[in-house]
Amino acid sequence: MSGAVNFKECGSVLVTGASRGLGLQIVESLASGGFSPGKIVATARNPERAQKLQELASKHSNIHVIALDVVSQESIEKAAAEVTQLLPEHGLNCLINNAGISVSADFNTAFLPLLRQAASRGGAGGSRSMSIQRAAVINISSVLGSLELNWKAETFNKWYPYKASKCALNMVSRCMALDLEADGILCMAIHPGWVRTDMGGCEAPLSPEESISSTLSVIGGLTEKDHGSFLDYTGEVLPW
Amino acid sequence: MSGAVNFKECGSVLVTGASRGLGLQIVESLASGGFSPGKIVATARNPERAQKLQELASKHSNIHVIALDVVSQESIEKAAAEVTQLLPEHGLNCLINNAGISVSADFNTAFLPLLRQAASRGGAGGSRSMSIQRAAVINISSVLGSLELNWKAETFNKWYPYKASKCALNMVSRCMALDLEADGILCMAIHPGWVRTDMGGCEAPLSPEESISSTLSVIGGLTEKDHGSFLDYTGEVLPW
Ligand SMILES: NC(=O)c1ccc[n+]([C@@H]2O[C@H](COP(=O)([O-])OP(=O)(O)OC[C@H]3O[C@@H](n4cnc5c(N)ncnc54)[C@H](OP(=O)(O)O)[C@@H]3O)[C@@H](O)[C@H]2O)c1
Ligand SMILES: NC(=O)c1ccc[n+]([C@@H]2O[C@H](COP(=O)([O-])OP(=O)(O)OC[C@H]3O[C@@H](n4cnc5c(N)ncnc54)[C@H](OP(=O)(O)O)[C@@H]3O)[C@@H](O)[C@H]2O)c1
Repeated sequence: MSGAVNFKECGSVLVTGASRGLGLQIVESLASGGFSPGKIVATARNPERAQKLQELASKHSNIHVIALDVVSQESIEKAAAEVTQLLPEHGLNCLINNAGISVSADFNTAFLPLLRQAASRGGAGGSRSMSIQRAAVINISSVLGSLELNWKAETFNKWYPYKASKCALNMVSRCMALDLEADGILCMAIHPGWVRTDMGGCEAPLSPEESISSTLSVIGGLTEKDHGSFLDYTGEVLPW
Repeated sequence: MSGAVNFKECGSVLVTGASRGLGLQIVESLASGGFSPGKIVATARNPERAQKLQELASKHSNIHVIALDVVSQESIEKAAAEVTQLLPEHGLNCLINNAGISVSADFNTAFLPLLRQAASRGGAGGSRSMSIQRAAVINISSVLGSLELNWKAETFNKWYPYKASKCALNMVSRCMALDLEADGILCMAIHPGWVRTDMGGCEAPLSPEESISSTLSVIGGLTEKDHGSFLDYTGEVLPW
C-alpha cells in the first residue's frame, strides 16, 4: 500500500512543532500531495511567528493552525478545547508527536478523548483493525534512542540527554501501546532518518522532503503488526 | 568465580541510598561476608536518621558513612571531596548507583576522577582487564526498564515514569560504557529481582538477603564481556 492512498482515508491529523523542520514538512507534504487528509491541524508554540506555516495555510483550506506549546499544561488544555471544536463528530485519527524530545502524560491525556472517539467509529469502511485511518499516536523518535545501536554511534557520544530522552520516549510509546490497545488505538515510534533541518544540520544526507515522503508512506501503511513498534523511515524495524 | 573471592580483591566500594532497602543490604552483605572490600563507603542523604546503617558501621571498621543526596549538586561535591580524602591513593574501584531512579551527569562527573585513578592502577595483580577489582560503575536498574519485556508486564502498566526513567538510566549506562571504555572502567546495569523492600512491597518473592547475595556475586564476577550489558541478579542477560 502506498502512503498516498492511505492518508486520503485518514480524516484528521494533528502535528506538533509544525513551525519549521520536519513538522512543517509533514504539513506541507500532507497538504500538497494527492493524499491529503480531511483536516490537518498544524500546531506551533508561536503560530504568529511561523511565517511559512501561515503561507501554507493560506493556500490549503484543510490546514488549521493552532497554538500549542507541548510543555505548557495551560496551552495543552486550550489547544485540546480548540481541536475538539474543530473535530466535533469524528474525533482525531492521527496524532503525530514531532515537537521536542519528550511526551508528557498531560499531553496525551488531553488528546486521548478525541482519539478514542475516532477509534470507536472505526477506520475506512468502519474497519476495526488498527491503522491511522482509525486512530493512531505516532511518536517521532530517533535511532539515537536505540540502546542496542548506541554502541557504535561514537559520533553522537556526548548526546546523553537527547539519547536518554528518546529512549524514555520509546518506553512511553511502548507503555501507551499496551494501554491503548483495548481502545483500538495504534501507537508506535518512528525514526525519520538523519535530515537537514536546524536540528539535523547541513551534513545530514536526507532533505526534509525525502525523509517525510518516505516516513508518511510508512505511517500511512501501518497495521496491527506495527503496534508498539520502533521503525525507521524506510519501514525497517529498529532494535530497542 | 564466586563473588566472595572477587570482592575481597576490590579495594573500595561506594553505595548510594544505603539508609534502607537494597542499599543497606549491599553494605551489610559486603561487610559481614567473608568477602569484604577494604573500604565500604556507605552514603545516605540523611545519615543521622539511618539508624541501622549507623549500628552496622559501629560494628565494622571498614564501613565509612558519608552524607550524599544524589539530586543535590552541593551535596555531591561535598561527598566527592570527603571520599577523595578517604581514598587518597587507590581511588574508587566500584561505584554502585542504587539510590533513586536516575543518575545525573553531575553525579558521575564528581566521582569520575576517583574511578580513573583506580583504573589506572589496574585490577588484582595490576591486571588491565575490566572488572570491579579495577574500576566499575554499577547502575541498579530494573526489568521494568526493559522495552522488550514491557509488552507483557501488564501488572505494572501504570508505572510510566518509573519505566521511562529506568529505560533512560539504561541509556546513560550504555553511553557511559562507550565513554569510559578507553579508561578501562567497566560500566553496566543490573536488575536486582523483585525484592521485599519499601519499594518492592511485601508480595515480592525475594528477601533483600537473597537478592543481594546473588547480585553481589554477579557483580564480583563481571568481566570485559559484561561491559555495557544489562543483566539480572542471576547473571542472565536482559533484553533492552
Ligand atoms: N533532523 C533530524 O536529523 C532528526 C533525526 C531523528 C529524529 N528527529 C526528530 O524529529 C523531530 C523534529 O525535528 P526537527 O529536525 O524538525 O527539529 P527542528 O528543526 O529543531 O524543529 C523543532 C520543532 O519543534 C518545535 N518545538 C520545540 N519545542 C516545542 C514546544 N515546547 N512546543 C511546541 N513546539 C516545540 C519547534 O518550534 P519553534 O519554531 O517554536 O522553536 C520546531 O517546530 C524531533 O522530535 C527530533 O528529535 C530529527
Ligand atoms: N525492590 C525492588 O523490587 C526493586 C526491583 C528492581 C529495581 N530496584 C531498584 O533498586 C534500588 C533500591 O531500591 P529499594 O527497593 O531498596 O528502594 P527503597 O527501599 O525505597 O530505598 C530507597 C533508597 O534510596 C534512597 N534515596 C532516595 N532518594 C535519594 C536521594 N536523592 N539521595 C540519596 N538517597 C536517596 C533512600 O534514602 P532515604 O532513606 O533517605 O529515603 C533509600 O535508601 C532502586 O534503584 C530501585 O529502583 C528495586
